[in-house]
Formats: sequence, C-alpha cells, structure tokens
Amino acid sequence: METIASNTCFNGTQLRLKHQAESLACEMTVSVYLPKQGAGGGLLPVVYWLSGLTCTDENFVQKAGAQRIASELGLVLVAPDTSPRGESVPDDPDGAYDLGLGAGFYVDATEAPWRQHYRMYSYISEELPALIQREFPVDGSRQGIAGHSMGGHGALTIALQNPERYRAVSAFAPIVSPMRCPWGVKALGNYLGQDRESWRRYDATELVRGSEQRLPMRVDQGAADDFLLAQLQPDLLLEACDEVGFPLTYHLHPEYDHSYFFIASFIEAQLRFQHAALVESD
Amino acid sequence: METIASNTCFNGTQLRLKHQAESLACEMTVSVYLPKQGAGGGLLPVVYWLSGLTCTDENFVQKAGAQRIASELGLVLVAPDTSPRGESVPDDPDGAYDLGLGAGFYVDATEAPWRQHYRMYSYISEELPALIQREFPVDGSRQGIAGHSMGGHGALTIALQNPERYRAVSAFAPIVSPMRCPWGVKALGNYLGQDRESWRRYDATELVRGSEQRLPMRVDQGAADDFLLAQLQPDLLLEACDEVGFPLTYHLHPEYDHSYFFIASFIEAQLRFQHAALVESD
Repeated sequence: METIASNTCFNGTQLRLKHQAESLACEMTVSVYLPKQGAGGGLLPVVYWLSGLTCTDENFVQKAGAQRIASELGLVLVAPDTSPRGESVPDDPDGAYDLGLGAGFYVDATEAPWRQHYRMYSYISEELPALIQREFPVDGSRQGIAGHSMGGHGALTIALQNPERYRAVSAFAPIVSPMRCPWGVKALGNYLGQDRESWRRYDATELVRGSEQRLPMRVDQGAADDFLLAQLQPDLLLEACDEVGFPLTYHLHPEYDHSYFFIASFIEAQLRFQHAALVESD
Repeated sequence: METIASNTCFNGTQLRLKHQAESLACEMTVSVYLPKQGAGGGLLPVVYWLSGLTCTDENFVQKAGAQRIASELGLVLVAPDTSPRGESVPDDPDGAYDLGLGAGFYVDATEAPWRQHYRMYSYISEELPALIQREFPVDGSRQGIAGHSMGGHGALTIALQNPERYRAVSAFAPIVSPMRCPWGVKALGNYLGQDRESWRRYDATELVRGSEQRLPMRVDQGAADDFLLAQLQPDLLLEACDEVGFPLTYHLHPEYDHSYFFIASFIEAQLRFQHAALVESD
C-alpha cells in the first residue's frame, strides 16, 4: 500500500492509501484512521465503514467526526471507496448516480459488462481485511462493520453472510431490502441479472430470516429522511428480525434526515455500540 | 435571508442561507448553526467563524465537527463565505487561489478593480452581525470571532479593531502579519495599493502594538504546518504581545498540520475558550 496523505488527527493518524485491488482488477484508494494506541505494539479492534451512493473513501473521513471517538476508544477505522475506479471500469451509460461508479452495491457482479471489476463483496469481505491485517496493528478477531444507506446495506449483508468474522454490525439509514426498492432492483438487476433467486444473498431481510448465528446489530434511522418510504423501508428489517427473534437495536430519530449531519450526530453512539461488542464481550 | 438548506444536527439546526449583501454588492451564502437552546426564547451567544483561502461557508460546517460543542454550550455559529461571489465580481486574471474569489482577506479594498465588491471587512464587522441579530435569537453583546489561516488573520484584525464588539478572539494557524508574508503582500498590495501605511490596520501585529483595550485571545498552531515559517510566522505575534503585555493564550501542537483534521482536533478547546469569555465573564 502506498501512502498518499497522512494527517495527525486527535492524537492519531488519518491516512489515505492506494493499492492494487486484485478482486476489482483496478487501483483503489482507502482511508485508515490509526489511533495513538496503535503505537503501543498491541493489536487494536477495527471497524470497517461502507459509504453510500456517490461517495468515495473521503466523505466519512471528512464529515462524520468519527476520529474523536476512535481516538478515545482505540479503534482503527477503515473507509474504502464505494466502487471500482479507473478508466477501464465501466460506468452507467447515462452516468446515473445509482449504478456503476460510486454505486458498487457491495455485490460480486455476474453480468457483463460489470463482472470483471464490480466485485465489491469479495473486496470488502476478504481482500481488504487481509491487507489491513498485514499492514496495520489490527486484531482480525475483533472486526466490526458499519455503513450508511447503500453502505448500510453492504454492512448488514456482509456481516450476515459472515457472522463468524464480525463481532458487530451497525448502519445509518440502510437499504434493508434491495429486492424491494427501486435503487436495489436497478442495481441487482444490472449486476446479477434478472434471476431474482441470485439476489437473495444480498438482501438483509432475506439473510436475517435464514441466519443461524446472531451478532449484535444496531440501526439508526432519521424519521425525516427523504428516502425512508420509497427506498430504505426499515420496517421490512424490523419485521424480519421480529419473525425470527433476531436481536436488533433500532433507533428512530425524529427530525433527522439522510445527510452526514445525521451521521455526525450519532456516530459516537454507534461506535460505542461497536466497541462494546468488539472489546467488552470476551 | 432565504433558507437554501436546513438539516437537523446535534439536536439543533444547521442552516444555509443566501441574502443580498449591500456592502459587497452581490448575493452571498452564509451558514448558521442554531442550537436547540435557541427555541427557548432567550438570546444566545454567537461565534463568527472566518475560513481560509479557497474555502466557502461550507468547509467549516462539514469538516470541523463544531456543532457538537455548540449544541452542548448553546452557542450560535455563523460561517460566512471568504469573498464576494458572482459573475460580476472580478477574480485574479490568472485564477490564482490567493487573490480574488475565495481570497477576500477580510479587508475593504480601495483599488480597482476590487473596490466595488471586495469589502469583506465591512461585511463581517458590520452588515452580517446586524443581519444575524435581526434574524436569529443572538445576543449582540456576547459576540466572539474565530478563524483559520486567512480567516485567523481576519478574526484577529477585526476583533483588534473593534474590541468593544467582541468578547473573545481565537484563531487556528493565522496569518499574523500579512505585511510581512508573501500571501499578505500580494493581497494587500492588490486590494489596498502600494502605500504600506494603509496596510497597518489589517496587520494583527501592528494592531496589538497599538491596542488600548485587551480582549481574551487564543491561538492554536500546528508545529508541522507547511506554511508555518514562510506565511504564518506566529513568533511575530508572540513578540508583539510580549512587547505590550497583551495576554495571548498560545498553543503549539506538535505534529499537527494546516488541515481541517487539525481544526477538528482542537475546535472543542477553542469553543470552550470562546464560551467562557462570552458567557462566564459577566
């Protein structure tokens, strides 16, 4: 990994790195916050943050104010980009914001022209954690995953598919059932084709219903979110969890919308939730 | 003022507004954070934040994480833009980042082609506070002013010229003596002409030496700031304060640079300093 920026922040270091991602067949940037505790020689717990549509690795780093809490708790934060990048990577022919670049949806695409590069599921769940463990003092047995909107969908589905690898999952305003919302139907239809059976493993409500292993799960949702009813539909997740007795901590926040101002307001609570599950639950 | 964005944030409201600025002869945007305490009917203390070169009203709002502290303390935060804007407003002919748009330097220009619009000193010290007091529940007798880099220069010089209007001034990595650094010499030479006598009222070190009224002043500076020696020169301010016995609280922070990661790390300390002077010193 090559360091392209390094800034001291809350006594730790905010890094931006680039590396050749094999699973995506392109060069990727990723941001890593390393708290001061990392200089002590021990291994630290780590939370992966998956951002939403149109974002890069930088939005969370610049806008969430998460480093303050990570510094206090001794958490490493890893914020990857939201899709493969580069001139050889196909994009939506109309340049739409919800397909192609900035909209990888954290799946492994099976359809042309996407399947060569759009393998964000493999990148996030396997390649990146292995790389981060090689390069930084992180404890691979203390991983959490979180995200926002499309990234909340990514966090939920990756954690539910790999409950043995993550000790906690949390999300802000996640797309909980891409099989049943316009963003999801468009993305999964393009990346996976029209056989909806293949979509199930990328739908949090389906995965909850089929899960045998419970991991701590928290969702924060703004009640004034413009995407609440048409795209996010948190009730579908609440229903699924209720049906199978999956323990979900759900917070509906009156007046908050879909923006990073919402995330900044509750990132402390969510990182404390992650930290409790990663560290205090031995 | 017309509201162009409104987001709930830390129980308060982050507003973005536009209005016709008479002193600048153009339309301006300004961001205002209104904590929940503003709904109680009382008047709140207010801190004006002046940003640095290339910034708009949005950088501080998105990157500093200041709303969390303002929410706790009941402070209104006002973040104006850094220059006049619009198609009729002249810019540096070469599009340089340190003159013209995004680089108003908080002076009232006297030279062509700048003098019609570039009157940021009058806008920040008079027009904007009067407007904010009309529109929001702020206590005009409890004003503080702060800023970063070029905006730190703006905060220091505006407060030192108007010590009866501000109860506190603070700055991150300010340009302390524009008369003696390349950024300042270029800007003041263009906006004010080559008679350096006219520059003195915009130089914090000159104003400190001539000041009769002391107000609480705090400066935070990163020791790894790339602009430290060539542009910022905090020692010139320390010397001037020492010479006349002006009480300056100066914090030099090892390893921190000029970025918003530095500001985010210490904005809490600086806003607590402001709050103490604005509220607790009756």
